[in-house]
Amino acid sequence: MTFAHRHLLGIEPLRQPEIVTLLDLADRYVDLNRQPHKHADALAGLTQINMFFEASTRTQASFEIAGKRLGADVMNMAMQASSIKKGETLIDTAMTLNAMHPDLLVVRHPQSGAVDLLAQKVNCAVLNAGDGKHEHPTQALLDALTIRRAKGRLHRLSIAICGDIAHSRVARSNIILLGKMENRVRLIGPPTLMPSGIADFGVEVFDDMEEGLRDVDVVMMLRLQKERMDGGFIPSEREYYHRYGLDADKLAHAKDDAIVMHPGPMNRGVEIDGTLADDINRSVIQDQVEMGVAVRMAAMDLLAQNLALTRAEGAA
Amino acid sequence: MTFAHRHLLGIEPLRQPEIVTLLDLADRYVDLNRQPHKHADALAGLTQINMFFEASTRTQASFEIAGKRLGADVMNMAMQASSIKKGETLIDTAMTLNAMHPDLLVVRHPQSGAVDLLAQKVNCAVLNAGDGKHEHPTQALLDALTIRRAKGRLHRLSIAICGDIAHSRVARSNIILLGKMENRVRLIGPPTLMPSGIADFGVEVFDDMEEGLRDVDVVMMLRLQKERMDGGFIPSEREYYHRYGLDADKLAHAKDDAIVMHPGPMNRGVEIDGTLADDINRSVIQDQVEMGVAVRMAAMDLLAQNLALTRAEGAA
Amino acid sequence: MTFAHRHLLGIEPLRQPEIVTLLDLADRYVDLNRQPHKHADALAGLTQINMFFEASTRTQASFEIAGKRLGADVMNMAMQASSIKKGETLIDTAMTLNAMHPDLLVVRHPQSGAVDLLAQKVNCAVLNAGDGKHEHPTQALLDALTIRRAKGRLHRLSIAICGDIAHSRVARSNIILLGKMENRVRLIGPPTLMPSGIADFGVEVFDDMEEGLRDVDVVMMLRLQKERMDGGFIPSEREYYHRYGLDADKLAHAKDDAIVMHPGPMNRGVEIDGTLADDINRSVIQDQVEMGVAVRMAAMDLLAQNLALTRAEGAA
Repeated sequence: MTFAHRHLLGIEPLRQPEIVTLLDLADRYVDLNRQPHKHADALAGLTQINMFFEASTRTQASFEIAGKRLGADVMNMAMQASSIKKGETLIDTAMTLNAMHPDLLVVRHPQSGAVDLLAQKVNCAVLNAGDGKHEHPTQALLDALTIRRAKGRLHRLSIAICGDIAHSRVARSNIILLGKMENRVRLIGPPTLMPSGIADFGVEVFDDMEEGLRDVDVVMMLRLQKERMDGGFIPSEREYYHRYGLDADKLAHAKDDAIVMHPGPMNRGVEIDGTLADDINRSVIQDQVEMGVAVRMAAMDLLAQNLALTRAEGAA
Repeated sequence: MTFAHRHLLGIEPLRQPEIVTLLDLADRYVDLNRQPHKHADALAGLTQINMFFEASTRTQASFEIAGKRLGADVMNMAMQASSIKKGETLIDTAMTLNAMHPDLLVVRHPQSGAVDLLAQKVNCAVLNAGDGKHEHPTQALLDALTIRRAKGRLHRLSIAICGDIAHSRVARSNIILLGKMENRVRLIGPPTLMPSGIADFGVEVFDDMEEGLRDVDVVMMLRLQKERMDGGFIPSEREYYHRYGLDADKLAHAKDDAIVMHPGPMNRGVEIDGTLADDINRSVIQDQVEMGVAVRMAAMDLLAQNLALTRAEGAA
Repeated sequence: MTFAHRHLLGIEPLRQPEIVTLLDLADRYVDLNRQPHKHADALAGLTQINMFFEASTRTQASFEIAGKRLGADVMNMAMQASSIKKGETLIDTAMTLNAMHPDLLVVRHPQSGAVDLLAQKVNCAVLNAGDGKHEHPTQALLDALTIRRAKGRLHRLSIAICGDIAHSRVARSNIILLGKMENRVRLIGPPTLMPSGIADFGVEVFDDMEEGLRDVDVVMMLRLQKERMDGGFIPSEREYYHRYGLDADKLAHAKDDAIVMHPGPMNRGVEIDGTLADDINRSVIQDQVEMGVAVRMAAMDLLAQNLALTRAEGAA
């Protein structure tokens, strides 16, 4: 098996050929999703549970559509209105769901490491849909697929990740993935929004957009995570946009064919100029969403295959 | 094709034969829904997303059941707990969902015109499930089907719509549909709850129930939309019931076989006497709900057929 | 037919052989749920609606999974965010859903008797998922299946139900079921949490754990229902745990092979010691959850069979 994992908890544990395997399969699911009849049965007879301890329209919808198109029985658990209220612990909730024999558990949680902890307690496949400031692996994979399709390759590219790096699991997973694929990663943002020790990741750090964007192939903007900034520096939106918001002037320093990305939801006029975000010659923001469904189908398909192998071995 | 529309945004754009086509198909789905095994595959392999920016148990449930019975993958998006909170615009939300390749988008929104706007941005079929005070086309269609089945025809009937006309998209869609089908429509209600310029619609206006109900075939009550009355006149419920609430005495002025309708949810003792609402010899309120599922199945079936044609042409 | 009911409203109406029939079928569904491909078509083409007027992660999830694994179209209605808000009555809501031709209606409601009332108004099968302090039949059935599998039989066992008996529909349904199956039931708890007239149920009452647990085969702990204690005695958690919380010392008075149960969600350190709850040699708490899905599949399967018979008779 080219993808040898029981869970998808982060990009960290993945090897380069595993990333390629997953993206290749996702490419095929992009084709399926563009068909009028968009159904396969890779997950038929399996139960997928989405446990979102943080609300997220787009990510949950993406996983739900992915599962349903592959034939899974998909169930959403609104965890805020749940047993958590009654004082049940995360682990008790996980054990309870596990006893119902789900096959795939998709988990988003506000605390870094919560999803890993949970994965140790259950005997189904767990997919991390974002845990605190830690990882958001399917976002990095969908960004990788978007880049590979737009640029024709996913190596030896110069890629700038811009904005609120410190609070971003999206940045973290992307830095790891793009590094593994041998790209050159630059981080651009105010020093107050740059994590300490980031230099160890083999990236270049800039606090000036024009300098940082010079000749890059890809400009990846991040969402300003105001909800995760507790007590620290909160820039005014106007000042932030002036210095770090992407507009046509700043983008002019990148390569002529550089693409523009954003994980969404966007704050137009804060992180990015609205007109630029909608410019289909430069922006691949809608493609990212489309690739998201395909990447999640691929991830769940691969994990379900591994689960079947494990169970067959267990039975033998 | 007898139903030549990409979306169902209102009754306004429909021609008389298109309304008949849709109701005829809905009649067949009424039969299906009364079977023990109630499944067809008109929407198999398609993705239906319900985006309700206003909560509505009955309408959302009706669309969800309709989609599932036709084999669609149905997804509900609780839009209050969503990206909207994070400052994303309606259009960004729509574009995001559109990138996931849904086939049918069912949208309810508190602002008149919001659903039309959204429909211009996506390349799937959009169904308006109620937008502000504008239109609620499937409600008018289910009312039409209910009347046609009860009365044996849907033309040359005398139909009274009673109550809070000004705040009612249900009234508006019904007035348009019943007019297109060549019925005689009367509006009855307090002048403060009557929209200005209503005479242009070719209706008769009354503020006295007994006078307005004289010899009508159909009495259509409306819900008092207190939640939509901002600052204006709010009648006391007791006074309102006395003057405009339907009871046996007032109904006695209508034809002996006149039917009683209400779109629900009812305020018993405000718009209508509870005993009358439950009288199966006069009230067709439960039939309206039943017809609702069938009409939505028919609408989604027709739009999906058109979508398939459009895509086939696009591919050719 | 060995299971002659239209609804599952409580344990009270069930005869001993009917309980056995249901548990036997549930045993087969346990096997199915342990398969990689966990799907049957007992409910294919049927519509199941879950109406939860009280939020409950685990019970709703269990019914949803049960229905989906049997091929039903399952719909969840979040009844707090619903028409109830707009002043609609329970009966109107039920009648409305009924008009959409559901086949199975799963209802949880805070008021005792509400589910029975609702069942009288609809023509589909109704399952009580907990009504006030009245009954919670599928919980008692899953407890029974858990006991039968752990002990090899479900009769002539000595079973202690411990804690907040007064506020517990779980206790009430279990007392009735275990009595019907000819077991010896002991109730242990503070006199203030013991319902009046309980002696009529043919049970023994204790307020001392050590005395009550002596030589029992099964220890069934209950959740402290603080949310249902209005105005009355509320014990401090520490004091409660000291006197009535289950730990290894108290359990030592039961038989050596006594099993420990809890309906969840648990308050660890209040009703039960966390280590004991996780001890797979004594605790069958996870098994209870697993049996829950199987028992609900069996109940819905049997009711759907009866519904089909009734309809066939109606048609003949």
